[in-house]
Amino acid sequence: MKLSGRSIIGDSRGSQTDEVFYAFNPAASEQIEPAFHAATVAEIDKVADLATLAAVEYKHKSSKQRSAFLHAIADEIESLASPIKQRVILETALPAGRIDGEFARTVNQMRLFAEVAKEGSWVQARIDHADPERQPVPKPDVRSMLRPVGPVLVFGASNFPLAISTAGGDTAAALAAGNSVIVKAHPAHPGTSELLGLAIQQAAQKCGMPPGVFSLLFGADHQLGAALVTNPAIKAVGFTGSYAGGRALMDLAAARSEPIPFFAEMGSVNPIVVLAEAANERGTAIATGLYAAVTLGVGQFCTNPGLVILEGSVEQQGDANGVESIISELVKLMKESSAEPMLTAGICSAYHQGIKRLAAISGVKMLVEPSADSTGYCVGPGLLETTAETLLAERSLMHEVFGPCTLLVRTSSHAEVLELVEALEGQLTATIHGTPNDLSENHELIDALEQKAGRIIVNSFPTGVEVCHAMIHGGPYPATSDGRSTSIGTQSIFRFARPICYQGFPKTLLPAELRDENPTGIWRLVDGEFRR
Amino acid sequence: MKLSGRSIIGDSRGSQTDEVFYAFNPAASEQIEPAFHAATVAEIDKVADLATLAAVEYKHKSSKQRSAFLHAIADEIESLASPIKQRVILETALPAGRIDGEFARTVNQMRLFAEVAKEGSWVQARIDHADPERQPVPKPDVRSMLRPVGPVLVFGASNFPLAISTAGGDTAAALAAGNSVIVKAHPAHPGTSELLGLAIQQAAQKCGMPPGVFSLLFGADHQLGAALVTNPAIKAVGFTGSYAGGRALMDLAAARSEPIPFFAEMGSVNPIVVLAEAANERGTAIATGLYAAVTLGVGQFCTNPGLVILEGSVEQQGDANGVESIISELVKLMKESSAEPMLTAGICSAYHQGIKRLAAISGVKMLVEPSADSTGYCVGPGLLETTAETLLAERSLMHEVFGPCTLLVRTSSHAEVLELVEALEGQLTATIHGTPNDLSENHELIDALEQKAGRIIVNSFPTGVEVCHAMIHGGPYPATSDGRSTSIGTQSIFRFARPICYQGFPKTLLPAELRDENPTGIWRLVDGEFRR
Repeated sequence: MKLSGRSIIGDSRGSQTDEVFYAFNPAASEQIEPAFHAATVAEIDKVADLATLAAVEYKHKSSKQRSAFLHAIADEIESLASPIKQRVILETALPAGRIDGEFARTVNQMRLFAEVAKEGSWVQARIDHADPERQPVPKPDVRSMLRPVGPVLVFGASNFPLAISTAGGDTAAALAAGNSVIVKAHPAHPGTSELLGLAIQQAAQKCGMPPGVFSLLFGADHQLGAALVTNPAIKAVGFTGSYAGGRALMDLAAARSEPIPFFAEMGSVNPIVVLAEAANERGTAIATGLYAAVTLGVGQFCTNPGLVILEGSVEQQGDANGVESIISELVKLMKESSAEPMLTAGICSAYHQGIKRLAAISGVKMLVEPSADSTGYCVGPGLLETTAETLLAERSLMHEVFGPCTLLVRTSSHAEVLELVEALEGQLTATIHGTPNDLSENHELIDALEQKAGRIIVNSFPTGVEVCHAMIHGGPYPATSDGRSTSIGTQSIFRFARPICYQGFPKTLLPAELRDENPTGIWRLVDGEFRR
Repeated sequence: MKLSGRSIIGDSRGSQTDEVFYAFNPAASEQIEPAFHAATVAEIDKVADLATLAAVEYKHKSSKQRSAFLHAIADEIESLASPIKQRVILETALPAGRIDGEFARTVNQMRLFAEVAKEGSWVQARIDHADPERQPVPKPDVRSMLRPVGPVLVFGASNFPLAISTAGGDTAAALAAGNSVIVKAHPAHPGTSELLGLAIQQAAQKCGMPPGVFSLLFGADHQLGAALVTNPAIKAVGFTGSYAGGRALMDLAAARSEPIPFFAEMGSVNPIVVLAEAANERGTAIATGLYAAVTLGVGQFCTNPGLVILEGSVEQQGDANGVESIISELVKLMKESSAEPMLTAGICSAYHQGIKRLAAISGVKMLVEPSADSTGYCVGPGLLETTAETLLAERSLMHEVFGPCTLLVRTSSHAEVLELVEALEGQLTATIHGTPNDLSENHELIDALEQKAGRIIVNSFPTGVEVCHAMIHGGPYPATSDGRSTSIGTQSIFRFARPICYQGFPKTLLPAELRDENPTGIWRLVDGEFRR
């Protein structure tokens, strides 16, 4: 499959501009052909116009038509499975097993949203019938439902080139909700993005969708993203990436003359609390699970656990052997671990710098120093240790280091565990390991974690986010820009819709979902009662 | 009922500080006793601490307990009906009929939220059961539901001293969702606020709610509001007021080290489009309705129609008599109208200045100049006229003038009507008057209005917002800070909650709403199917 390196602009292609960039193979440490051509200002405008036009036509497609379109996208992606997998491995050095899993997740996720669109109840239709006889004033006929917000901008994420990128969760959610989508391809995997973009373009053509329903723009610098976020045509944005990048774009979105919803998932340290009895009963098993969660995908997951709070390990309250066994097992596993390639040179150097930053703080001990190889791409896992006292005195220890490292925190009491939790910033996830006995006494801990995280996990690990109806992959700032939202799972469809209310409408002008006869057969709240 | 003029701080009262202010009777143009004492910095901190403590205790109350609390508030307010109504009329000069209506709406609204809390399905519970046998990886048990965000700050609104104030919609929604609430009393009706606050305090005591579940703070300047919005304890804010005030507080909320959801309803011009055939068929009736909507409550409604787009009235396409009859009837009704007192001297002078600003623009004709009396509080209605061409050249004509005035816009074609709609900023409401024939040809107009407004009304008027399940009183910026939300109707409960996901939780630690046996009997999405 030959790549052209040109943006996808509705049903046509961008120009071969002189401003080019290349993908890079981190495993072989070499540049990959072809050149990718940065979108021009005129192309950004054209894409915005096309998306605006398409938004109106696309929102009038029935839920079945939208569903068929999403299924067609999944089919097209599957038909390109082999070239996509080859290219993504070349561009990311992620292992084939991981890519197989992420590929399946991407296709399944698209089909899951296709089913959500077809079933249709996600629009939260509500009907309150009129009562012309009501005193002192007649009651009007009022109906409301969620409607698409308009063109949605999606940023491809570096660490999930398939599942959170061109044809990833935000794109699927935005299309399922009835929005046109513009994707800014991540410059670290442009070839993968082009292949996925072509799959969507092909599906749009086959399903008779308006050309501007999907576009994909290339660009290697921050200007393209900034130009898109501030373009008046864009009505909502989905982003997964670093705090610095997310915050800068969030501020741009808020400073527009019309501020728009900006959903950034900016990562977090995903604290794990290991309670004393659990540490004693199954310290080695916890260490093994923790090692796997920290090193999975070379630690390049948003839910990578970067902070482990160990109950009662400073002053040896009771039997603290569990804590020592967790630490010694982790040290052993990490020291045996080989260096693996990270996604980009930038991510790799930020990892080394981040660990140095932590280790330089007084009261922090380096237990396992990460290895590095001469390519500048491969790293080994890192392990650091400190005390609650040090952490509370130096909050910057709680800031994420992206990569396969974690910071162990010894505490002297359960009260100190709670104090640490209270001091946490917003998190995507928080995890508790505890025995039934540990847990039954800890409503206070769960209450505190509910204030801090979007997802709370008991006796498992946060990596491997399940794409399902109940998943929340979000959390209070700074984990995300808006803790009321998720970027993974079917509830992400709510990002790209807003309620519109229709009062006194003649039947023929109402959306099908709000007509009395309920032609789409969805669940609705009719005069206060759920009905289908 | 004796007022103390002191803030309500949980189950106690604020101090008699030296910084005082008084309510003012606009009808009599005189100050009203007693003095109201501004909250101190220490009191703000105390209230924040109490609200944080109470938030944890209150969120563990069952939905039935919360419901009983809201019903008790409604009962307490009713038991104070007479002093509340007397005081609010004194402080606002709103007519007794309007106050009776608003009082009933306030009590009914509190009870409606009590029922929503009791029924409980609003939490959008979702359960995806585990599948330990799934390949290639086991499926975890994942459950999610909406949970209270934490202490909510509510700003009392000047124009709805009962229904959008101390015990108004945001307070009811926040309490129903399980949050503690801090209200900043509007300084124009502090006595009304104190009475309503006492009713809530009384209900909290009777129902055994934690003291910090509700507090009410007094203050006459902007410092109190700013201090509260930036207080780390506050996790969400509801505001109804001016664009300037809303935008300033919105920026403060966004600039916090932890930005929080800030819901501001900042008003709009609520455009009305009168299509040609409707104007011809029932011009006089439209004028009568429009006159009532513009002058209701001395024009002091968020949904007051400030812009009327008249189709086909410049070049007399077809029979334009309808348009002329609308204009002449409106002029007649407005000229016959007497001056009525506005809420405050500030609102009154802004009204006069606003109309002068519009009239000074070249191409704008003053048809009815508003009368004024010597008190500085009473105004008559104002009517201005311009053309689409003028409006498109001078967009500031689209900015709201708060009060009983409206701007008529003549157009030369249906295309020009659409062009005007495309040029609109975000609106709370948009209204179309048309015959079946007018409407059947106007899907394009409705599509355009969906992009601009939160509520679209056909053949009626936007004032008199119905408090019901389907109501949306919101809309794209700058009508509100967040077009995905409503400040009126039961969907406003979603403002003050965020989804939390529980993975692998033992049954005893799950909220009741997420346990398999469904003890609260709510509607849930279980493995993708709606069930109860």
